Amino acid sequence: MKTIDFYFDYTSFYGYLGAEKIGALAARYDRQVNWNPILLGIVFKVTGSPNVATMPLKGDYMLHDVVRSARFLGIPFRKPSKFPIGGQAASRITLWVRNQDPSRVESAVLALYRAYFIDDQDISAPEIAAQAVGKAGFNAAAALAATQDEAIKAQHKAEVEAAIARKVFGSPYMIIDGEPFWGADRLPQAEHWLKTGGF
Amino acid sequence: MKTIDFYFDYTSFYGYLGAEKIGALAARYDRQVNWNPILLGIVFKVTGSPNVATMPLKGDYMLHDVVRSARFLGIPFRKPSKFPIGGQAASRITLWVRNQDPSRVESAVLALYRAYFIDDQDISAPEIAAQAVGKAGFNAAAALAATQDEAIKAQHKAEVEAAIARKVFGSPYMIIDGEPFWGADRLPQAEHWLKTGGF
Repeated sequence: MKTIDFYFDYTSFYGYLGAEKIGALAARYDRQVNWNPILLGIVFKVTGSPNVATMPLKGDYMLHDVVRSARFLGIPFRKPSKFPIGGQAASRITLWVRNQDPSRVESAVLALYRAYFIDDQDISAPEIAAQAVGKAGFNAAAALAATQDEAIKAQHKAEVEAAIARKVFGSPYMIIDGEPFWGADRLPQAEHWLKTGGF
Repeated sequence: MKTIDFYFDYTSFYGYLGAEKIGALAARYDRQVNWNPILLGIVFKVTGSPNVATMPLKGDYMLHDVVRSARFLGIPFRKPSKFPIGGQAASRITLWVRNQDPSRVESAVLALYRAYFIDDQDISAPEIAAQAVGKAGFNAAAALAATQDEAIKAQHKAEVEAAIARKVFGSPYMIIDGEPFWGADRLPQAEHWLKTGGF
C-alpha cells in the first residue's frame, strides 16, 4: 500500500489540525499514513526559526488563526493553559504503539492530541500522556514505561534526525511520493496531488 | 461599498498570488479592494521575523511551494533572477495611481507584479517600474516622477507605519470587517467569511 509520511509535533496547533484530517484523506486515496512524531525545538535549531507563538504581531495572529482554522475545518479546539510543551513523552508512547501495531497509531495520536488541545491535559507529563492513551484502550502502565524506555528514546532521537535529513522543518509536514507539503493549509494541495498523481 | 483591505509587498511571492485572486473574490461579494503596498523589510524589524527565503530547509521549501501553489491556483509564475528586491518604486507608483483613481489601482498592481514575477523585470528600478505601468496604459513619465515625489514618499512611509499599527506583519494580509487573514492560502477562509458574514 502506498503511503503518506506525516510528521508532527505534539505541541503544534496546526499539527493537531492536520492529524485530525490526514487519516480520512489517506483513506480516500487508499494510502496508509506513516505517523512520525518530531520535536520542533530540535528542528528549529537547524533552521534558525524563532518560535512564532512568541513573535510580536505574528504570535497573536497565529492563535487567532488556529482557532478560526479549527472552526473552518470543523475541529474542536481549546487553547491549552500551558503552551508550548515538550512532546517527548507523547512521542515515545506513539513510537511504542507504532512498534507494536502501526494500524493503531492514529487512535493513539488523536487521543494524545485531543487530551492536549480539547481537554487541556498537559501531555508533557508522562503520567498524563499514558492516561490519555489508556482511555483510548491502550495499556496505560506499559505506555508509561515506554516513556522511560532507553531503546525508544534512542529510536525517537534517530527518527527526528532522519526527519531533518529529509528536510522536514515544520509541523505538520507531509511527504507524498517524494513531494513535500507543509502545514494543515496545504491539505487541499495534497489532496489535489493524490487525485491527479501530481500537478 | 464595503471593502477588503489588501496589504502586500512587491517582493512577496504570495503577495503576488493573492493579488491575482483578490479582485475576483471581492467582486463576487460586491466588495471594493483597498490596495495597500507595504515594505516587509520595515515590518520584519518590528516582528523580529527572519527572511524565510534564506532560512535553511524552509527557504528551499518556500520556493518549491510557491511554484506549486501558482500551478494549483492557475497563475503564471517564474522565479525572478533578483530576489528579494526593494518595493519602494513600485509602491510609490501604486500610490500615485490610487491617489488619482482608485478604480485603476488593480491594473497597475498586476502590471507591476507580472513584470516582476512573469517577465523577470527588476521593478526595484524606477525606470523599469514606470515602463511596466506604461505598458498597462498609464503615463510612464508621470509614474517615473512619482517615484521621486516627496509627498508620495512621505505618504508611503506613513501608510507602512499605519499598517504596522494595525498589526499587519506579512504579505498578503487582508482585513475584512476587522477580521485579519494572512497569506494567499487563507483566501478560502476569507471567501467563507464573506459568504457567511463571519464564522
